[in-house]
Amino acid sequence: MCSRLMAGSEMLLKALETTVDNQNISFIDAARSAGYAQEENDLRSVFLKKGSYAAFVELHIEQGPLLEEEGISVGIVTAIAAPASIKVDFKGGGGHAGAVLMPHRNDAGLAAAELALAVEKHVFDSGSIDTVGTVGILDLHPRAINSIPSKSHLEIDTRDIDEERRNKVIEKIHESAVSIAKKRGVRLAEFNIINQDPPALSDVSIIEAMKSASKELNLTHKLMISRAYHDSLFMARVSPMGMIFIPCFKGYSHRPEEFSLIEDISNGVKVLALTLAQLSLK
Amino acid sequence: MCSRLMAGSEMLLKALETTVDNQNISFIDAARSAGYAQEENDLRSVFLKKGSYAAFVELHIEQGPLLEEEGISVGIVTAIAAPASIKVDFKGGGGHAGAVLMPHRNDAGLAAAELALAVEKHVFDSGSIDTVGTVGILDLHPRAINSIPSKSHLEIDTRDIDEERRNKVIEKIHESAVSIAKKRGVRLAEFNIINQDPPALSDVSIIEAMKSASKELNLTHKLMISRAYHDSLFMARVSPMGMIFIPCFKGYSHRPEEFSLIEDISNGVKVLALTLAQLSLK
Repeated sequence: MCSRLMAGSEMLLKALETTVDNQNISFIDAARSAGYAQEENDLRSVFLKKGSYAAFVELHIEQGPLLEEEGISVGIVTAIAAPASIKVDFKGGGGHAGAVLMPHRNDAGLAAAELALAVEKHVFDSGSIDTVGTVGILDLHPRAINSIPSKSHLEIDTRDIDEERRNKVIEKIHESAVSIAKKRGVRLAEFNIINQDPPALSDVSIIEAMKSASKELNLTHKLMISRAYHDSLFMARVSPMGMIFIPCFKGYSHRPEEFSLIEDISNGVKVLALTLAQLSLK
Repeated sequence: MCSRLMAGSEMLLKALETTVDNQNISFIDAARSAGYAQEENDLRSVFLKKGSYAAFVELHIEQGPLLEEEGISVGIVTAIAAPASIKVDFKGGGGHAGAVLMPHRNDAGLAAAELALAVEKHVFDSGSIDTVGTVGILDLHPRAINSIPSKSHLEIDTRDIDEERRNKVIEKIHESAVSIAKKRGVRLAEFNIINQDPPALSDVSIIEAMKSASKELNLTHKLMISRAYHDSLFMARVSPMGMIFIPCFKGYSHRPEEFSLIEDISNGVKVLALTLAQLSLK
């Protein structure tokens, strides 16, 4: 959130200005009571001007299994895939699982099932290995074995390193949602694209600096795409950006098993330091 | 539950003997503390012998909209459709919605979506309007927008007035579950048929008695199938059975809007009384 705001997201700014917590305290009041923003009333004051930094370089665990599997010390990120999130609601007639015969149904749950499979199809149809799409949330209402679902709710995540290709997938998902609703006689009550961040490319001169730092330290390295997104995705909007990955255990991340060897952490810090040193000479 | 046990269900008997509530109190102990079963240790004592009753006749609201829509006073039930319930679990590899590329996925959620649509297909393929199938419950785990579902859970309800046809649908659903699991590289961790009651046919002489009672009372009537199930479904195992339906508001049932006109209730009671009187003369 911080980097998104620093990078000047008007949408986030607006959300922070109008959102309150469950004690009705606004973001800026919470910041003040924690000792921040004493002199400021405008969250815009944290926006960074383009050109404030000559380079932004981030060190991170890979959050994927490739470096560990291939026995490579350093990943040099060339692009960060960016997610778009979509919330979808279908509404149908519901009814009793025994009493309503098949021809009279408009089953919101089956509409959701069809859309989930359509997401997968459109992602495969993009033709690129870098396009992914996931339905991680699919809720039925009233959620009873003897009730035809009268409502369904899906949350869809699509990612790509190519913004246009990802947005085309979103468009096709929308077309499917409309045609499934029509076919099944349910209502597409919501199709809301929650966020749709553009992917980011690493800066060529920073990639070169990370490469030469790895070589100088005699560390094996490979060029990679970051599938997860990071502060760098947003910082790339205001500064040239680069990212360094180190191996981690089985790609585990944000769970108790997350682990990296002290040697790998040390390698990462060295590459970061040497990269910054090289960039500072430019 | 009561009629199922009275009709001699060994499966329910076993469940009641081994189930305890959240205070670790068994069914028979709860019955005793409520003043029942003082002399009995064996729940089998409530089993009815076949032939105990010459007829079992049940009066009920339709729980469907047909009588009201068609302006008919009395429904004479010729058959009760019976549900079978199935619980299904798929287990897959899960993973991060960004990090795991499409070819490496085994998405338990998409397996569930496919099975839900397969249920609908197999029901339509049965060729009879009396076959229905519903997926009322479909849960994903971990249920997060950025996580590929690692587990999914479905609860499926299928009903028919023809037991063989319904069981054939169940068989096909099972075949689909197996082949979907295979195709998607997920594990079919559970396919459990929870109950599979046979449908019941009303007794011909009771149908005739209900018809002639309606005629004698000058009430319009029609022959119907009960899509919901009732005590009569189980009582039919130990006694000739019949059911009388009366109209209800929009078919609403088990909700605050449930309503029948006093006139319709009165008509139903009269038909029941006259039917019993006629049967007692036989």
